[in-house]
Amino acid sequence: MIIMMNAPTIDQINRVLDKLRQLGLDGHSITSLDKTIITASGDLSACRPELYERMPGVDKVVIVETPYKLASREFQNSNTIVTVDKASFGGSTIPVIAGPCAIESYDQLYQAGISAKAAGASMLRGGAYKPRTSPYSFQGLEKAGLEIIKTVGSEVGLPVVSEVTDPRKVELIAEHVDMLQIGTRNMQNFVLLKEVALTKKPVLLKRGLAATIEEWLMAAEYIMSGGNNQVVLCERGIRTYETYTRNTLDLTAVPVIKHLSHLPVIVDPSHGTGSWRWVSPMAKASVAAGADGLLIEVHPCPEEALSDGPQSLTLNNFSQLMAELNTLATALGRSL
Amino acid sequence: MIIMMNAPTIDQINRVLDKLRQLGLDGHSITSLDKTIITASGDLSACRPELYERMPGVDKVVIVETPYKLASREFQNSNTIVTVDKASFGGSTIPVIAGPCAIESYDQLYQAGISAKAAGASMLRGGAYKPRTSPYSFQGLEKAGLEIIKTVGSEVGLPVVSEVTDPRKVELIAEHVDMLQIGTRNMQNFVLLKEVALTKKPVLLKRGLAATIEEWLMAAEYIMSGGNNQVVLCERGIRTYETYTRNTLDLTAVPVIKHLSHLPVIVDPSHGTGSWRWVSPMAKASVAAGADGLLIEVHPCPEEALSDGPQSLTLNNFSQLMAELNTLATALGRSL
Amino acid sequence: MIIMMNAPTIDQINRVLDKLRQLGLDGHSITSLDKTIITASGDLSACRPELYERMPGVDKVVIVETPYKLASREFQNSNTIVTVDKASFGGSTIPVIAGPCAIESYDQLYQAGISAKAAGASMLRGGAYKPRTSPYSFQGLEKAGLEIIKTVGSEVGLPVVSEVTDPRKVELIAEHVDMLQIGTRNMQNFVLLKEVALTKKPVLLKRGLAATIEEWLMAAEYIMSGGNNQVVLCERGIRTYETYTRNTLDLTAVPVIKHLSHLPVIVDPSHGTGSWRWVSPMAKASVAAGADGLLIEVHPCPEEALSDGPQSLTLNNFSQLMAELNTLATALGRSL
Amino acid sequence: MIIMMNAPTIDQINRVLDKLRQLGLDGHSITSLDKTIITASGDLSACRPELYERMPGVDKVVIVETPYKLASREFQNSNTIVTVDKASFGGSTIPVIAGPCAIESYDQLYQAGISAKAAGASMLRGGAYKPRTSPYSFQGLEKAGLEIIKTVGSEVGLPVVSEVTDPRKVELIAEHVDMLQIGTRNMQNFVLLKEVALTKKPVLLKRGLAATIEEWLMAAEYIMSGGNNQVVLCERGIRTYETYTRNTLDLTAVPVIKHLSHLPVIVDPSHGTGSWRWVSPMAKASVAAGADGLLIEVHPCPEEALSDGPQSLTLNNFSQLMAELNTLATALGRSL
Repeated sequence: MIIMMNAPTIDQINRVLDKLRQLGLDGHSITSLDKTIITASGDLSACRPELYERMPGVDKVVIVETPYKLASREFQNSNTIVTVDKASFGGSTIPVIAGPCAIESYDQLYQAGISAKAAGASMLRGGAYKPRTSPYSFQGLEKAGLEIIKTVGSEVGLPVVSEVTDPRKVELIAEHVDMLQIGTRNMQNFVLLKEVALTKKPVLLKRGLAATIEEWLMAAEYIMSGGNNQVVLCERGIRTYETYTRNTLDLTAVPVIKHLSHLPVIVDPSHGTGSWRWVSPMAKASVAAGADGLLIEVHPCPEEALSDGPQSLTLNNFSQLMAELNTLATALGRSL
Repeated sequence: MIIMMNAPTIDQINRVLDKLRQLGLDGHSITSLDKTIITASGDLSACRPELYERMPGVDKVVIVETPYKLASREFQNSNTIVTVDKASFGGSTIPVIAGPCAIESYDQLYQAGISAKAAGASMLRGGAYKPRTSPYSFQGLEKAGLEIIKTVGSEVGLPVVSEVTDPRKVELIAEHVDMLQIGTRNMQNFVLLKEVALTKKPVLLKRGLAATIEEWLMAAEYIMSGGNNQVVLCERGIRTYETYTRNTLDLTAVPVIKHLSHLPVIVDPSHGTGSWRWVSPMAKASVAAGADGLLIEVHPCPEEALSDGPQSLTLNNFSQLMAELNTLATALGRSL
Repeated sequence: MIIMMNAPTIDQINRVLDKLRQLGLDGHSITSLDKTIITASGDLSACRPELYERMPGVDKVVIVETPYKLASREFQNSNTIVTVDKASFGGSTIPVIAGPCAIESYDQLYQAGISAKAAGASMLRGGAYKPRTSPYSFQGLEKAGLEIIKTVGSEVGLPVVSEVTDPRKVELIAEHVDMLQIGTRNMQNFVLLKEVALTKKPVLLKRGLAATIEEWLMAAEYIMSGGNNQVVLCERGIRTYETYTRNTLDLTAVPVIKHLSHLPVIVDPSHGTGSWRWVSPMAKASVAAGADGLLIEVHPCPEEALSDGPQSLTLNNFSQLMAELNTLATALGRSL
Repeated sequence: MIIMMNAPTIDQINRVLDKLRQLGLDGHSITSLDKTIITASGDLSACRPELYERMPGVDKVVIVETPYKLASREFQNSNTIVTVDKASFGGSTIPVIAGPCAIESYDQLYQAGISAKAAGASMLRGGAYKPRTSPYSFQGLEKAGLEIIKTVGSEVGLPVVSEVTDPRKVELIAEHVDMLQIGTRNMQNFVLLKEVALTKKPVLLKRGLAATIEEWLMAAEYIMSGGNNQVVLCERGIRTYETYTRNTLDLTAVPVIKHLSHLPVIVDPSHGTGSWRWVSPMAKASVAAGADGLLIEVHPCPEEALSDGPQSLTLNNFSQLMAELNTLATALGRSL
């Protein structure tokens, strides 16, 4: 933390230094012409700019420390590998999670799962509890959906992931799936983050709709500080002024996260773009950017989907994409 | 819903009309040169563009209906008045809700409350459960905080409002306060919205950090469709590229909401700007724009605040602002 | 400028200090544990973070100085008053500039002008050279438009303002109008800024569509450093993700600009919101926020306007708004 | 254009149809319950929603036509190939334009050029006229810079591109370079667009800082409607709320542009991300997304660069990137 003071009196400088000392922080001041700068170091969580911003003589307070700790590369230099059955995120492989947005029926999920597996997917996804913008939209099959995904996952031989939205349902869902998804609207639902931390299940943490990279890592920090280190981050597009695409896929976040954090980061080009038409090029771009995996919506019959049909690939499209991704991964020295 | 088709065959047009009919919608087609437009009317919730977007011949589907119903002026033309004890939102008065961001102690809240009351505030606010970006930040006094706010409210004679963040705590909080606040990070926590709907307590619904006006009204719709019509909307700034202010206060949302909805809308210039320096001018601007109330952070000692100190007014600043707001409200034919 | 170094060697620190010295800057280093911070002061324009960011041992470079100088309150504490004939921006009066977006004919502008004057407007506006998104849209009457606005201004007794878009036309336009407008799309057209600086005419500098407050003040700095101090800033809405309104009017920019700069700042609620429906409430909010003036689109017949009709007030609406603004200004101790 | 009317009278419908007819448009109305929809077709440029939006009975006007014509795939289905000497944009090759942000000296540009050529670059870039946010920053070598780039291009055997910022300098610059660049701040400088249209030189049109894809294509339309079809679009990052990276690179724009337009689209990951650290992964991602070329900042000594040093690759980094891009392009069935 750096505290900038404009033409302060000696007394004003000392009051700032005293306050730092009271909170166990180490402060040093340096004066040059009429500017004084105080640097503070020590326990990160005691760096609270608001305590100093209104003290007399203080002009500006800048936090230069990263607010996340467990999630940072400084804390752990080597990549965290998150393993979900045979899928492994964070190493040289690039697992692909495929499946429909919402679980609609056993048949629908089974078809999706068996084809996804055949095409080379490593995990099956499907929502049983759906956070929908409208109270009048389909809200998911709930408990029945959980039973379907558990059954189908076991039948087709793929580990499964499904979204949690309610802290009261975390335990139930954890009994049915191999990985818990925190959706974009719940990235800062801290109550829910603390709850999934307790399960010790791997967590797929989607980036919030308008979350900064720092806030996203802080959400991971909530889960990790709660005792669960098995966090996979998922870029899924951010909200910008551009309306042609549903969201703006922020692919630069991939190398940025790999630089700042040891956690794996995957990409969801389906939500990230909002249309099946852009899924294949952006899936390939994600892999070239260094993503640790992909999450792709696949539906046996997208035009009948009860949720997010326009962004789902058909089983054929998906199968073709997987072939192209294989070639690409090989050229980059990796594999799906 | 309007379905645009580009050079369709007769058969393609008929398939769209058939699908509309199956879902109970009324469809009409009109063809001009090589373009065909199909208009669909009927039950709003059956208008699902994704069912048509990938049908052969379809170019584009545009929803022209508003997705919210109970919250709309079309559904109810006269203003909803939400009454919390003597405070009344939506009529000619402009109640001011004042208090600290977080409840820190009985003394702190009592001082804030007694001064706010003296200056003319209509309600007292204070957070007991705080959603904080960092797991290492102060998370609120929790149950002890609830007891403090209940006591202080009763002692100073002001109804009180506090935030809910956990569906499991809604009942407990509702027993201690007169109004429940849904914070900006939980505007699309649908599980929580459904839970506050069940309490029948008035709800203060803050706009999400990057929520559109339509999504905000849809969040109100969740509460209303759950049986609770006592919703007060609160504009609190949105996230934009501008970083000089913490958020960009979208004051135009006030007349827009008054036009689209019968619900009252108030403004929080403290969070909306992020600095006490801009609170007074923006509070006045809010009233001039037609706001139905204000929510202002006031702290007996902002530089010691455990949360959001930089944006809190001192008790003196608040008192002076209230005097200015009184003059302004009178000139506009209203009163605080 | 602050240069942060992570566990640097003595040699690395010295290389940074040497480079600062070469560029005439005064550098001091302070080391605490494994962090070293170097503060640099001196000639602002020599503070170039890019020279240090890649030097060995350097972690981060933060500019803490404001990049604008002539436009800052630190440079000049007292308000600049920009006078255009009888209109005076920056003092206790709140001049209103009214008129159509584009000059379409003598009759149209005369009607707008005579009514605006009668309602109490202080200046007349109208575009002769229109920057339009589409090459197929009406591009303005050009030279003929300039002659119309000069004539009408003189006949109705109002000073006039019109937009410049081409450095080759600045002189011509300056001969016909009392104030030059730099439009939102040209805020960073530095060639044009330098050219209007040479005219010594008052300049109305609109904020760019996605310009930060700092960039906006830097654009003013271009004009001022070119020798022209008569700059009036105009907030006109910024681009955000919200699409219900054409732009998001950033009214907090008004008190922020008044704090950072001595230059006057006015508001254009017509472009700022994009619809006549929100112009009146936002004009009032602008005045309450402390604006030094208003720019309002008025058209004798908005539904026939060749440009921006939907956001223009009718002459009647404008007249009624002026009456309301008068009451409001009086209550705030100011006058139109 | 679709005009929606809410419970209109027959007379109101007829007035809309009459107005359409007057402007040469073909209108059809369809009524269903209390809603009437009028569809209009005919000359695109006569579709002006503002003429109808305020007519009695009209609720909403929606433009469904794309506003650009010459730039659209509908107008020309086959890809436009823009050829600059041996570089060819829009076909199976992926030309790389490399060089420093600003031309600083003959030696600097020669070193950059000779190395870029050796590494496989197809064109050399360098700015002689620099649009800088601050009037106190280096503004370019101007005419001397043009002579340097002309000489160096010829000596190293690469065609060259440089930015135009002033309509009065377009002819001069066109005499010295093979391709004219319109920078991000001038994308909607329509005066400049019209001027480069007259030169018939290939134009590199950068996307505006906060431009929509539609506005970007409209800027291309300005150049094309002025008689110059040789336009190469360049994605270079957009402004969003995320501040960790300087801009948010919108890579999805690549497949979107390829779908909407026949024009080539390349990517500038240097400006698009703002740091050399993200240039390599995002260059690879651009190629995987289907880009028709790359523009990469390369500087012999980035830490001494007078402009944008932090985002420039060293000559070694560039050379290594080119090798990686070659492998990638081959795997995708293309070549640099």
